[in-house]
Amino acid sequence: MSLNEALTEQKSTLLEALQSDAADLDDVLPELRAADIAEILEDIAEEDDDTPTVFALLDHLSVERRANVFGYLPSDMQGELAEAMSDETLLALFEEMSSDERADLFNLLDEDRREGLLRRMAKQEREDLKRLASYEEGTAGAIMTSDYVAIPSGMTVSQALMRVRQTAPDAETVYQIYVLAEEGRLAGTLSLRQLMVARPGALVDDLMIKDVISARVDDPQEDVARLVARYDLLAVPVIDSDERMVGIVTHDDAMDVAEEEATEDFHKGMSIGQLEDGVSRVPLWSLYRKRVIWLVLLVFANLFSGAGIAYFEETIAAQVALVFFLPLLIGSGGNAGAQAATLMVRGMATGDVGVKDWGTLLGRELLVAGSLGLTMALAVAPIGVMRGGEAVAMVVAMSMVTIVLFGSLLGMCLPFLLNRLGWDPATASAPLVTTLIDASGVVIYFSIATAILTSV
Amino acid sequence: MSLNEALTEQKSTLLEALQSDAADLDDVLPELRAADIAEILEDIAEEDDDTPTVFALLDHLSVERRANVFGYLPSDMQGELAEAMSDETLLALFEEMSSDERADLFNLLDEDRREGLLRRMAKQEREDLKRLASYEEGTAGAIMTSDYVAIPSGMTVSQALMRVRQTAPDAETVYQIYVLAEEGRLAGTLSLRQLMVARPGALVDDLMIKDVISARVDDPQEDVARLVARYDLLAVPVIDSDERMVGIVTHDDAMDVAEEEATEDFHKGMSIGQLEDGVSRVPLWSLYRKRVIWLVLLVFANLFSGAGIAYFEETIAAQVALVFFLPLLIGSGGNAGAQAATLMVRGMATGDVGVKDWGTLLGRELLVAGSLGLTMALAVAPIGVMRGGEAVAMVVAMSMVTIVLFGSLLGMCLPFLLNRLGWDPATASAPLVTTLIDASGVVIYFSIATAILTSV
Repeated sequence: MSLNEALTEQKSTLLEALQSDAADLDDVLPELRAADIAEILEDIAEEDDDTPTVFALLDHLSVERRANVFGYLPSDMQGELAEAMSDETLLALFEEMSSDERADLFNLLDEDRREGLLRRMAKQEREDLKRLASYEEGTAGAIMTSDYVAIPSGMTVSQALMRVRQTAPDAETVYQIYVLAEEGRLAGTLSLRQLMVARPGALVDDLMIKDVISARVDDPQEDVARLVARYDLLAVPVIDSDERMVGIVTHDDAMDVAEEEATEDFHKGMSIGQLEDGVSRVPLWSLYRKRVIWLVLLVFANLFSGAGIAYFEETIAAQVALVFFLPLLIGSGGNAGAQAATLMVRGMATGDVGVKDWGTLLGRELLVAGSLGLTMALAVAPIGVMRGGEAVAMVVAMSMVTIVLFGSLLGMCLPFLLNRLGWDPATASAPLVTTLIDASGVVIYFSIATAILTSV
Repeated sequence: MSLNEALTEQKSTLLEALQSDAADLDDVLPELRAADIAEILEDIAEEDDDTPTVFALLDHLSVERRANVFGYLPSDMQGELAEAMSDETLLALFEEMSSDERADLFNLLDEDRREGLLRRMAKQEREDLKRLASYEEGTAGAIMTSDYVAIPSGMTVSQALMRVRQTAPDAETVYQIYVLAEEGRLAGTLSLRQLMVARPGALVDDLMIKDVISARVDDPQEDVARLVARYDLLAVPVIDSDERMVGIVTHDDAMDVAEEEATEDFHKGMSIGQLEDGVSRVPLWSLYRKRVIWLVLLVFANLFSGAGIAYFEETIAAQVALVFFLPLLIGSGGNAGAQAATLMVRGMATGDVGVKDWGTLLGRELLVAGSLGLTMALAVAPIGVMRGGEAVAMVVAMSMVTIVLFGSLLGMCLPFLLNRLGWDPATASAPLVTTLIDASGVVIYFSIATAILTSV
């Protein structure tokens, strides 16, 4: 049974239980996982447009579990549900949510509501929430949690273990322990595994790793995700500009960020702006806006192809058969160029390709693209002979090699160039590369045609 | 200082230390992280082509650390280094490597070498290695490790904690404990956190979660990665067809798989076959092969565009100005279509879009693409007036709306269709979509042109 089928089944079981008897529901609900309940609720809210049922189901969950489910809901839905809740219910929910998810939800509420809620919170909780909610979206600060295990420098192993036990119910992870020196500065870190096998009387300061891999609170979130992936970490500590520890980013949040960033790069690669949500949920107007900008820009960029054609109108009028090969030649160049650009953009995003590799990669691309061009020229030459004789075949074959070679080199170099200019290399999208190669392809093709066919 | 700069600096420090004095090296090496040493060694082997230095540096590492570094090296380099090692050195390395990385390395060796090594191993180690090495690449079995903490059903909390302490040095993670019933069947799981806060005399069987999220040994690796991401897991247990537990896949390996799969989808989206390694390292011949297949196929697919043009040759000859708008119109259709396809392919890969959403998404795309087409028609109409008068402007505007709408719908539906046929939706690559839209665009454009311009 696929995940989707299982969820559909669970959903109907839940809805049946809700209609028949509350006791039934209390049998079914505890067996479901928070992530799955969240997906079912999302489905009920969107497909069935039935918010009352969503609330009825949420009411049957314990506050703790409700907080857990909430963390898995898409943010717009979290916001809508929170607005319909009373201050009391929302505060109770806040208390059970992890600090990072609470701050995200808090930021979705309107100004007045936020002020009202803050006034009703205990001082420490309020300060923590205000601080976490203040970090800019897309930074380490915005995805970190303040629920981690920190111990002061100087403790013994058994004291530290005691502290871990005390903090266990609230901390996001207890498996990495952070040792703080004066003023909350991060002095070192050690794992619960190290603590468990160490002699109880040993000093934590003698066991801990002092050269800690950490992120700055204003580091871009994708850099933090890359640290977690590169060093196989459970969590990265986050420090502020005074070297004080302010939070941790856990492996699961890092994985979410990595997925989010990959999606963004996918969309950028096809000239789509950054969507705030999944494609099935984002508002239509937003989807239109994120797609139209580049499309219209590219319409104008495409005029260069038109201008090229206008310039060679005489050649075309004399040999209309040449138009036959036009989409094929510029299409092939565009495809090869888009391949080259994609290889570079993705290589740069995963850290496989650095700016210093440019020279080597240029040499490699020259060889590969040259071979590709020759192969494609051989494939197209017989058709050239058939459609227009040997002279046309020669024009088409020569154009193919030149266009594919030029297109590939352009596609390969553009991401590096954009990177140099401080732009995101992913802006070198397939549509942009294709459009640029279209225009150059027109000029290359008809120049070769004019040269060869008028000399014949 | 960027990561790349830091590594370059560390590399030169290392090389200097190596040349001056072994004692210096022993000062520098312990301060570097395994992942960073691996990257420096890779750089020395590839940029400087200096294998002797790689071996000299490896010799200065303890076997334990060497095993750790080895796990971060690209697999082709692991294989080359292992081939140059004596059986003794390699067996010592094997002993310290984690079981999944050892199996991967083992699979890189040639038949004779493998036989020789197996004969020199202890029975249990040999069985474990043979079993792990036998799973097909790309499955849960191939990425799982057999170094996990398993306890028999019936233990108390304090007995279980004792077992965790004993296993700690060898297990890949000690933070999730698996409880096995008779014949090694997975009965439940609990976290070390649960164990630490529980009463020492309590029974593990009363605390554990019985409904365990698990993967099958032959599940595709991307499904396992998605489980880890969806349920925020530290590790997923892997079971065989008899429900026996055979290994775990840890969060860091799941993250690597997710990155690998995203890269593969990126490449597929631009009609590039699956590369065995990063673009800067993969052999040129392989790079050529992975790119040429689709490119040549698309050359022939592009002939349909040519055929369309040949069919309308009369219309074109009568109005050569029409060619001016050809790249622009088919390019715009291709761009809009590639956007639509990318949104669907990525949505399906992340689980945001399911096959059941097809109807809703079609309605949405109809609205968005219609608006996009109208906007682009408005942008291009004035140019139509300038280049060929009102009739041409009308032809171009009408063609733009039709082509963008048709292209977007085609791009949106193709991934679903491929999925239905049991193909990977990512095969609906931008080049394929663009080529299909090119051919249809030619027919749409010149049909409208023939109809309007001959009736005028």
